[in-house]
Amino acid sequence: MDDVVVNVLTKVELNKPVLIVGLPGLGNVAKLAADYLKDAISATKYATIYSKYFPPQVYVGDDGVIRMVSNDLYFYKAKSPKQRDLLILVGDYQGLSPEGQYELTDRILQVVSQLGVKEVYTLAGFAQGHMVENPRVLGAATSPARVEMMKKLGVVFSKNEPGSGLIGASGLFLGIGQLYQMESVCLMGETSGYFVDPRSAEAVLRILMSVLNLVFDLSDLETKAHEIDRIASRLRETEAKLAPPQPEASQPREDLGYIG
Amino acid sequence: MDDVVVNVLTKVELNKPVLIVGLPGLGNVAKLAADYLKDAISATKYATIYSKYFPPQVYVGDDGVIRMVSNDLYFYKAKSPKQRDLLILVGDYQGLSPEGQYELTDRILQVVSQLGVKEVYTLAGFAQGHMVENPRVLGAATSPARVEMMKKLGVVFSKNEPGSGLIGASGLFLGIGQLYQMESVCLMGETSGYFVDPRSAEAVLRILMSVLNLVFDLSDLETKAHEIDRIASRLRETEAKLAPPQPEASQPREDLGYIG
Amino acid sequence: MDDVVVNVLTKVELNKPVLIVGLPGLGNVAKLAADYLKDAISATKYATIYSKYFPPQVYVGDDGVIRMVSNDLYFYKAKSPKQRDLLILVGDYQGLSPEGQYELTDRILQVVSQLGVKEVYTLAGFAQGHMVENPRVLGAATSPARVEMMKKLGVVFSKNEPGSGLIGASGLFLGIGQLYQMESVCLMGETSGYFVDPRSAEAVLRILMSVLNLVFDLSDLETKAHEIDRIASRLRETEAKLAPPQPEASQPREDLGYIG
Amino acid sequence: MDDVVVNVLTKVELNKPVLIVGLPGLGNVAKLAADYLKDAISATKYATIYSKYFPPQVYVGDDGVIRMVSNDLYFYKAKSPKQRDLLILVGDYQGLSPEGQYELTDRILQVVSQLGVKEVYTLAGFAQGHMVENPRVLGAATSPARVEMMKKLGVVFSKNEPGSGLIGASGLFLGIGQLYQMESVCLMGETSGYFVDPRSAEAVLRILMSVLNLVFDLSDLETKAHEIDRIASRLRETEAKLAPPQPEASQPREDLGYIG
Repeated sequence: MDDVVVNVLTKVELNKPVLIVGLPGLGNVAKLAADYLKDAISATKYATIYSKYFPPQVYVGDDGVIRMVSNDLYFYKAKSPKQRDLLILVGDYQGLSPEGQYELTDRILQVVSQLGVKEVYTLAGFAQGHMVENPRVLGAATSPARVEMMKKLGVVFSKNEPGSGLIGASGLFLGIGQLYQMESVCLMGETSGYFVDPRSAEAVLRILMSVLNLVFDLSDLETKAHEIDRIASRLRETEAKLAPPQPEASQPREDLGYIG
Repeated sequence: MDDVVVNVLTKVELNKPVLIVGLPGLGNVAKLAADYLKDAISATKYATIYSKYFPPQVYVGDDGVIRMVSNDLYFYKAKSPKQRDLLILVGDYQGLSPEGQYELTDRILQVVSQLGVKEVYTLAGFAQGHMVENPRVLGAATSPARVEMMKKLGVVFSKNEPGSGLIGASGLFLGIGQLYQMESVCLMGETSGYFVDPRSAEAVLRILMSVLNLVFDLSDLETKAHEIDRIASRLRETEAKLAPPQPEASQPREDLGYIG
Repeated sequence: MDDVVVNVLTKVELNKPVLIVGLPGLGNVAKLAADYLKDAISATKYATIYSKYFPPQVYVGDDGVIRMVSNDLYFYKAKSPKQRDLLILVGDYQGLSPEGQYELTDRILQVVSQLGVKEVYTLAGFAQGHMVENPRVLGAATSPARVEMMKKLGVVFSKNEPGSGLIGASGLFLGIGQLYQMESVCLMGETSGYFVDPRSAEAVLRILMSVLNLVFDLSDLETKAHEIDRIASRLRETEAKLAPPQPEASQPREDLGYIG
Repeated sequence: MDDVVVNVLTKVELNKPVLIVGLPGLGNVAKLAADYLKDAISATKYATIYSKYFPPQVYVGDDGVIRMVSNDLYFYKAKSPKQRDLLILVGDYQGLSPEGQYELTDRILQVVSQLGVKEVYTLAGFAQGHMVENPRVLGAATSPARVEMMKKLGVVFSKNEPGSGLIGASGLFLGIGQLYQMESVCLMGETSGYFVDPRSAEAVLRILMSVLNLVFDLSDLETKAHEIDRIASRLRETEAKLAPPQPEASQPREDLGYIG
């Protein structure tokens, strides 16, 4: 068995496709956004990726049928001249070890490079350590030109955010992508870091929609966001009843910025 | 030394053999069942498997003679037209690391694939976190057809069990087996997770007996089960004497479901 | 992707260059010194080294542009017959795992060996576990001849320092370098081990200046050293106010010697 | 760099040499004995073994000269027809990881197999968890014939010792050696497990002397044993003064048997 097995399911010819990467991480922002995107635009599965760098695990569906832990590559053909062909990478896990992260990212970039990819957008959550009402989308990119392009679309480039850089696939696809002559952007939705965050995923998708000239309905994410809000506020109420009031608890804690 | 060394001990021609996998795990259910099966049907050792993915350890027998940590493959030739040729995988350990789990499973599947295996049954324990009087056998499979087939034999397919999927060899043989065009089933005997569980192994073997049209005596497992029962009830008595009565302790704890 | 990727940026012919190694470690002494050296002598970047043995991380610059975690090799051409051509290895990290340490060191030695390197100086911090006013530079070398040569330049060779040997790149470049017929020296600046230590880096650079017949201004390091002094003394004052006086606290703790 | 580098220092022709393995472990019994043996019989260094499976470390001698962590292979030519040619493996470390243990053992067995080795003796300590006045030497072997041969020389084969088998190089050389058609014995000197134990090393060497028809002076080990005795009894006195008398402390604790 190869260290990374790429099981191609169908042949496809794509025209300079853009790769979108949305793997599990902070607030599940990237995974939520990429899974939503692939469903919203009815993308087609192109390949399933298995690897010894993932956990040795299979999932069991409600029907009792298993599937092995994987990453999956979907494609989408442009519906108008303004759109771009897309490849979307989603999955259950990132690589478990540092070596695995590098090997997986490189192998997948090799595959998409052969399909013509020269441009990558990775999605991520940016943990602020406090609740965020209106999440901004922060950015990082492989060139000043890309930074300028993204600024015009409302992406925030902030000197001290993220301070420690990008850790995991959302950063590695940019870095190793440069060895494949790819230009890339990381889009990070602000999130508390405490909850799954559909609102942050929505903010990231709004930026992606303008980048890619796509239009699709985001109301399902909004519904999910309201649900999470309800759960969070109920938790806060319970906490408030149990604990005596703490004046400093009302202030946002802004010192926990971290990327995932 | 190869990462996985397969030491073949004898030549054998088998007719579409079925692979049974019973490696150590929760409640030792799988190992107990597979070891019992291979002895009950007097299976013959086909190959010994050594690997750097096992612990660097040798065992010393009562006679002072050592043997290295291994997995072992036994074969059984059908005694009647209703039976099937079998391969049975037993062993001291599963692979220590995630990578090791994948590498070992894949290498063994490669070997058995060359012997004609197209069908795999993996055995496992399913930890309920509380004592189980009459253990059910839960299932997972690679296709809806297999699920139906197993249901008819009394295997339970339950929506939320196992919630987190199958971890380790019992799942990987199903997942990687699909890459070898194998159809597979995992049979999980319910167990507390606190004791070695011969009663759960017996339940799993009863299913296997109908699947494979085998008949053999299970009384040794029943004897072992009674022994474990005595030990467990003596432990409970000692506990009851030492601790004051706790009303909630009488309720079963059903929240610890986990697979091994 | 190769385990270690050496991205050569420019062609260069060097005359028996000396390799200087300054990677992160105790008190950041080696990194501070090597980074300072390469800037002070305006060395030119020769190659960038990426590896799966580094953390899966990219840095984001103030302009929003990323760069992947790396080690970097700079070169310097001698400006006078008394000087030597140099290669300087700096970087963000050492290899994460023992295997990674060996693989990275060996691969880099292979590259510099092809450029004609027969002589290596590795820089390091030597943690004393107490504040050091006038840091000595301790040494270790691959031959008695080198030891004598270094003693004449003021490097201290002390029977019990370092007791446990050299751990990490500063030692491995010496050890594996011998397999490439290289003669090497490790220069260890004494440091407390509690703070980044520009004063220790300065002491190491002074030795390097005489070894290599280089002259450059060290005042920036002195400025940094004064800053760290101010921070350290402010910390001590705060501590003194909070804690009752402890007579034994005024004595140096000399039992924490360790190399990095 | 190969995963395991075998640096051969001299050519040698040996006549069916016996391999003795004495690497660091419990009570340092094996290392003490093998180092003592190679010095006592003035064995000659044949090869130095470096590996990425060892810690990334170099030692610094009193003269300031470094050497890399290694294992070392010495040879000894028989001085009389009753003696055997020998290879002795000593070293600073065993492999750090399970994979490293397997890879190192296999690679070294490959080297000595080419030199004609068909017989291996590994040395080890057997931790009893209590002070041992007159350490026995316990054994394990690859065949009943070897067990019988060793019994005649005073080696003890005990049903429940070692219960958990042999862990590390002392066991693996026996197990993997079988794949090279080698017959092997592990000689385990009883030791407390709390101190470096020259008396146990001496007991092991006495057995080796009769096995190999060697005679050499053991008085240096006895001197060392008396030193350790003095240190141990001083520790006990200090303990006795500090702690109130505990009746159960006077009984030997015999429940900690473990191999290294």
